[in-house]
Formats: sequence, structure tokens, C-alpha cells
Amino acid sequence: MEQFDSNRLRRLEDAEAIRNLIASYGPLADCGDAGAVAALWSDDGSYSVGDFGEAKGRQAIAALIESEMHQNLMKQGCGHILTSPHISLDGDSAIATNHSIVFRSADDRHEAWRVSANRWQFVRTDDGWRVRHRDNRPLTGDERARALLSL
Amino acid sequence: MEQFDSNRLRRLEDAEAIRNLIASYGPLADCGDAGAVAALWSDDGSYSVGDFGEAKGRQAIAALIESEMHQNLMKQGCGHILTSPHISLDGDSAIATNHSIVFRSADDRHEAWRVSANRWQFVRTDDGWRVRHRDNRPLTGDERARALLSL
Amino acid sequence: MEQFDSNRLRRLEDAEAIRNLIASYGPLADCGDAGAVAALWSDDGSYSVGDFGEAKGRQAIAALIESEMHQNLMKQGCGHILTSPHISLDGDSAIATNHSIVFRSADDRHEAWRVSANRWQFVRTDDGWRVRHRDNRPLTGDERARALLSL
Repeated sequence: MEQFDSNRLRRLEDAEAIRNLIASYGPLADCGDAGAVAALWSDDGSYSVGDFGEAKGRQAIAALIESEMHQNLMKQGCGHILTSPHISLDGDSAIATNHSIVFRSADDRHEAWRVSANRWQFVRTDDGWRVRHRDNRPLTGDERARALLSL
Repeated sequence: MEQFDSNRLRRLEDAEAIRNLIASYGPLADCGDAGAVAALWSDDGSYSVGDFGEAKGRQAIAALIESEMHQNLMKQGCGHILTSPHISLDGDSAIATNHSIVFRSADDRHEAWRVSANRWQFVRTDDGWRVRHRDNRPLTGDERARALLSL
Repeated sequence: MEQFDSNRLRRLEDAEAIRNLIASYGPLADCGDAGAVAALWSDDGSYSVGDFGEAKGRQAIAALIESEMHQNLMKQGCGHILTSPHISLDGDSAIATNHSIVFRSADDRHEAWRVSANRWQFVRTDDGWRVRHRDNRPLTGDERARALLSL
């Protein structure tokens, strides 16, 4: 019988937790739960959203969801899509890389308003994995967006 | 050496099985395998598809795939996209939350015909995990769609 | 205490590795890392891209990324989206099935240029899992594309 190596199990649990956390962003953003979105980040977490600038700390991140722009998007009908991420674990920190798409309702269909590159830095806290920093930039030919996707 | 806790392994297997089941819906819908789609649900399973109403039981779920509307969509060219779900396990039941997109072919590109919120109830059966209920509603500003995405 | 079964752990690790590999394709394609894309395949791997034909071997696969068409797509702004795959493990080989979407930037939004069916054959090598063959075909009503999605 092979010996049980709890590190192997833990790495799988870490990847699962990070995947679940990323998978919760879209639903929480689309139903407008600003507090729950902000709680995905660590206390000192930050979120850089392309040309909109950087939100630092949970209050500023919640404010993105509470903003008039986001609330109007919700009323119009929107879908925040996050793709299955590439995950690189390194002990108590991790990097995840994926795409996000913001669809907005338009006539009898949806338009892909933003298709972006995302790079997430995660940290293990006493309350589980949290986002330390998320970098998001639309893929409109911008070299800085492409750079986020290097692995 | 840490003691082996088989519950930790089982929870990972449960999440993996549910993720794989959701990942099979799109391919099976797009290749028109009505029987295999229906078999993802439990015997008494149901599927509520926005304003199209609710399909109760496997025969009614298979009929959605066999319908003229779905068959025409397949001939035109369609892609049923399911995003990586947020999964909440609770013993022999589970809730998964994600987005779905139905693309249809149009001229030299694809249109996002429907971008929807999805809430799945799963149950562990003797044959493995099955869908007990799937609730799907297009994200067109409808509060009921947004409500499906609360976690 | 239940006995530890290392095969259960290994199957989870296999699925995780394959999922991570597929999740790396889009980021690597979008940032133009031709060598890293090619290294996802085995030495004798191949990639059949719909009507563009089949690329055989790593050099030919790298050439797809280095091609004028792909480089222009990157400059215009593109997002190669890969959905969470259905994975069937069989010892040292595996089949994964999913969708891919190529978005390209257009005016103030993105267009879904190609929505395709994908069937991936994986093989376990001394360096880990690699793609032996990927079959990609746009879902434009083509029966051959639909056939790739049967499970």
C-alpha cells in the first residue's frame, strides 16, 4: 500500500477552493451582492480594472458593484462570464490566469461588451483562500492585456 | 504522518463528478443525444427553461432536444456553452451555480442568442450524481434570473 | 478507518492536470507564446483545425501561432476561450470534450468569430500529460463538428 501523502490531497483542495472562488465572482457580480464580491478579496486586496483604474480594499471593490454603471448593466441584463482558470500553486500563494467576458443584453441577443485577460494573485488566509490582487484588461490589441496571459 | 480522511477525498470526487456532469450537457445538447441528456437527470428530475416552461421527467427533457426548435438550431449551427460552476456540497445533495450561453451561427460569426443564469440541484443516486432540478433564466434584466445567481 | 486508495487520488490529479493544460491553451495562444503552445502537445502530436487542415508535430503547431493570420488576430485583439471540459480517463490516456470560442475585437465590442467543437486525445508521458491529438471544427451546422461532441 502506497503511503498517504496529505500534501497531494491538500494541493487538490487548494485548486478546488480557488476554482470555486473564481466561479463565484460572476454570479455574485450579476446578482449585485457587493459585500460578497468584496469578501472574495483579502483585507488589503486590490482589483485593477483596465482603464477604470484600481480599487484598493474591500470597500472600494464593493463600490464597483454599487456604482451606477454596474447597476445599469444589471438592469439592462448582463452576464459576467469567467473561464476555467489555469492555476499555479506555490504553498500559501497561487496565481490563476483566465478570461472574462461581460455580456450585455441587446435586442434579441447579447453582445460581448468586454473580453478581457485576467491574472489573479491568491493568498491563503485564516479564513481560506482570498484574492490579493486581480488584474483585468480588455483584449483590444493592447500589449499590456496580452502580457497578463503569459504563464 | 497525517491520518487519511476519506471524506476529504470523497468531497473532491463529488465536485469532480458534478463538474463533469455539467460539462457534458453542452456537448450532448449540441450533438442532439436526447437520451444521454435526459439521463443526466434523476428519474423525477425537472428542467425549468425560462419562459418556455418546465420539463418534468426524463421523457419531457429528451423532448426538448428532439423539438423542432432545437433541431433547427443544430442545423443552423449552435454551441451550448456552460461555464465552470460554483459548487456547494452538502452530503448527498449539492447546488451548482453557473452561466450558460447559446451561440447560433449567423453569417461569418456566431451570435450569443441566450445568456442565462443557472441554478442546479444535484442528488447522489445509486448510479452516481444526477440533476434533480435545473433552473435556467435569460439575463435580460429579469430580477428572477439574477436571483438564481445568489450564493 | 478506510484504507487509502492512491488510485483515487491519482485520478483526481490526472483530471486536474488535464484541466490545467486545456486552461493554458487560450492564455498562451492570446499572448502568442508559440513554443509553450506547441509544448502542450506530445512530440508526435497533431492538431486538426477545421478547414485549415492538420498541423503535425510541434513545429507545425507553433507555426499556427506564428502565422500572419494569428498575429493579425492578436494585434486586432482576440480572446481564445476554452470551456471547462468533460474528461474521460482511461489509465494513461484520456479524452476531453469541450467548446472553444475565438472572440475578436470589433468597434466597441467583441465578435464571436468561431464557436467550435473540440475533441482532445491525451497521453501520459514521462513529462506529464500531453495532447496527442486535438480535433477542432466550427459549429456551423456541419455534421462532422457535431460528431466531435458525442460522449
